[in-house]
Amino acid sequence: MQNKTSSPRVVIIGAGFGGLAAALKLAREPVEIVIIDRQNYHLFQPLLYQVATAALSPADIAAPIRSIVRKFDNVSVLLDTVTDVQRNHRQVKTLGGRRIEYDYLIIATGATHNYFGRDEWQQFAPGLKRIEDATDLRRRILLAFEQAEIEEDAERRAALMTFVIVGAGPTGVEMAGAVAELTRHTLARDFRRIRTEHARILLVDNGDRIMRSFPQSLSDKAHRSLESMGVELILNTNVDDIERDCIRIGTDRIPSRTVVWSAGIKASPAGQWLAAETDRAGRVTVDASLLLPNDERIYVIGDACAHLNPDGQATPGLAPAAKQQGQYVARDLKARLHHKARPAPFQYRDRGQLATIGRHSAICDFGRWRLSGYLGWWLWGIAHIYFLISFRNRLLVAANWLWSYVTFGRGIRLITGDVQPDPAPGRQADARSSQRNDADRSAAVGPSN
Amino acid sequence: MQNKTSSPRVVIIGAGFGGLAAALKLAREPVEIVIIDRQNYHLFQPLLYQVATAALSPADIAAPIRSIVRKFDNVSVLLDTVTDVQRNHRQVKTLGGRRIEYDYLIIATGATHNYFGRDEWQQFAPGLKRIEDATDLRRRILLAFEQAEIEEDAERRAALMTFVIVGAGPTGVEMAGAVAELTRHTLARDFRRIRTEHARILLVDNGDRIMRSFPQSLSDKAHRSLESMGVELILNTNVDDIERDCIRIGTDRIPSRTVVWSAGIKASPAGQWLAAETDRAGRVTVDASLLLPNDERIYVIGDACAHLNPDGQATPGLAPAAKQQGQYVARDLKARLHHKARPAPFQYRDRGQLATIGRHSAICDFGRWRLSGYLGWWLWGIAHIYFLISFRNRLLVAANWLWSYVTFGRGIRLITGDVQPDPAPGRQADARSSQRNDADRSAAVGPSN
Repeated sequence: MQNKTSSPRVVIIGAGFGGLAAALKLAREPVEIVIIDRQNYHLFQPLLYQVATAALSPADIAAPIRSIVRKFDNVSVLLDTVTDVQRNHRQVKTLGGRRIEYDYLIIATGATHNYFGRDEWQQFAPGLKRIEDATDLRRRILLAFEQAEIEEDAERRAALMTFVIVGAGPTGVEMAGAVAELTRHTLARDFRRIRTEHARILLVDNGDRIMRSFPQSLSDKAHRSLESMGVELILNTNVDDIERDCIRIGTDRIPSRTVVWSAGIKASPAGQWLAAETDRAGRVTVDASLLLPNDERIYVIGDACAHLNPDGQATPGLAPAAKQQGQYVARDLKARLHHKARPAPFQYRDRGQLATIGRHSAICDFGRWRLSGYLGWWLWGIAHIYFLISFRNRLLVAANWLWSYVTFGRGIRLITGDVQPDPAPGRQADARSSQRNDADRSAAVGPSN
Repeated sequence: MQNKTSSPRVVIIGAGFGGLAAALKLAREPVEIVIIDRQNYHLFQPLLYQVATAALSPADIAAPIRSIVRKFDNVSVLLDTVTDVQRNHRQVKTLGGRRIEYDYLIIATGATHNYFGRDEWQQFAPGLKRIEDATDLRRRILLAFEQAEIEEDAERRAALMTFVIVGAGPTGVEMAGAVAELTRHTLARDFRRIRTEHARILLVDNGDRIMRSFPQSLSDKAHRSLESMGVELILNTNVDDIERDCIRIGTDRIPSRTVVWSAGIKASPAGQWLAAETDRAGRVTVDASLLLPNDERIYVIGDACAHLNPDGQATPGLAPAAKQQGQYVARDLKARLHHKARPAPFQYRDRGQLATIGRHSAICDFGRWRLSGYLGWWLWGIAHIYFLISFRNRLLVAANWLWSYVTFGRGIRLITGDVQPDPAPGRQADARSSQRNDADRSAAVGPSN
């Protein structure tokens, strides 16, 4: 295999917002860049809930990493999973058995769900981080209605038509709004026996208001928007248990077959690879230049790091923050390579936050000015199309949204993967025998009279 | 559960071209219609190869059945798999344990791949009938290049970069053309060590020409088009064996990690359910009205049936034929219900055949006039967009194709599902030890010098 070129090699782990921003900013420098990612695409995670609720296709919010960096001959891409970093050898180890040497390492490995010690909940309450999470959730939601349509038992039907979202941050709120749209508009009239509009949608959070990163007034607006769409908000409340067919909140047992987890994240295992100091969420502590303390060759950015800005605020776990950090470390490294003066310590600049709650409703916070409702919704849409990584995606997402707008949300309602219902233990046998008992036409499926 | 309504119930098994055409034509009649399908969507199978070659998304060529029939209150949809038909009870049995009674039954269950007794080939040479087949094939093709990029061994690299398509009917030819486009245009410059343009694409058939359903002159044009795109055609040749990493053709052993099967189809098990007479491909023999002989309540249409037209020709296994049969049985049933004169025996009308070979090349046969090349390609594109089931799909497929046209095919190159390479036995261990042996930087991945 070819030897390393004479220019320094920068290895970037993770092609999310942070890693990709660093790669693109360094690509014109005299360095060799190797991007390692478990997936072959960059994912626009903020719109993942739209895949889960059948409004967009996976390919609308993802772009192949190779295609993004194709014009830079000094950038190569490795599809593999990192398992360790050996700082003494300056090597990254992968699951595919490779060892990749680095001169500089940028760790941008993001975060995963945090079940706060109750990992057994994951099977019943999946989170939303990867494309597979989204298509799996789409399958669960659409299958729930298919099963409800043919379910004889009232309690089981109610469980199938109850959707609980845990965690009322941006993902949870946008997800709850999108499920409400799906049941109130998109699926309305598709079924003959159930009324999808009667589906219960619960949004549970342990805080005293939703969207705590937004100011109180916008948080209140989002709250009212969700309520007007029929979402039930349960605040100041912890989840006690999640089982296959219910969720327990205090003494309440709420039958539900679809629970979505958006209550917390924990960082990737980068802290373990580095044997570095981390915070409680597993994020690596970095210095003012986003470098690992005592190792000038390793930067940690995005959700993988815990960083305190010079103004005393922690950098939030948002896409723009990861992007700014990626660009910053590229700038810092460039200065070091050219023996120029290094930039001032990293300071996150808050350029605003946006979240949508449903058709014609969004909240936008730009510090001094705020926006909500109809105008906010348009701004949200335009901003999200603008920030999509490739023009192809912008074209197609715009076409999709235009279509949804005109038709009140006729979406991408494909159930892919395993289609056969996923019965609770004993459930399928019950259904069979009950149907065998009433023997005749009454077991047939047809329009209700 | 509700009783059957007083109007006769028509149960349609399968929402492909035939079943859906029948449902839509019967929907305004005083009948109750139940459509049973294993999937929740109607699939435009003729474009499935474009999903497999990363040009379209699954949702572009599929539309939810419920959404297609939503305005007809007398049509209901059941997501379930039929396992048997009990003619004495006039019942359909499903995997979900249901029994659905019928007054009339339309069986439109289509066909699956035929490995002619070598079913063990299926794991190495998947066919292309379902969305999951297409996304699986897309994953295989894209992963093959990812693996080739990091493969040290020349023979294994060659096997990864050799794509064999077995069967040169429309699917095989279109697939070969699309893989050629993918490697020659779409992926060019994406990789650093391999040249995707050098990928070998073989199209193998046991006949003496490709596209035998077309006239010789168009078949020759398609042949030349494929050759000019770098596809190697191997005619008059049978496949002797397919293994994980090679295909055997006579005494030739061609190393290949990606083989696509499009050499034959066999009908669904409808013949077994009915204990009816079938031909060698398992298609149910029907009478001139597409009824099962001796059972006036059961129609069999599309690829599920073998039908001889009054003109002595067999109805071909094409989407337009299935559609015409679906419309015919709806017309026939309508006449029977209204005690009107029944239509003349079914006669397939050949309105022409189209197939595309790649960018700017297609063949069109309309009997008296024929078209190929550039104009044929435009006609092919317009016809396929026109026949897509919903306007949403037409909009998005048009946007996608427009984008591909402008950019020379930057497509939907997502590897979803299990991303880790799928090593041949012993292969991963080899790669690991060989890389451990050369210990140092030489094992790293980077641009070639």
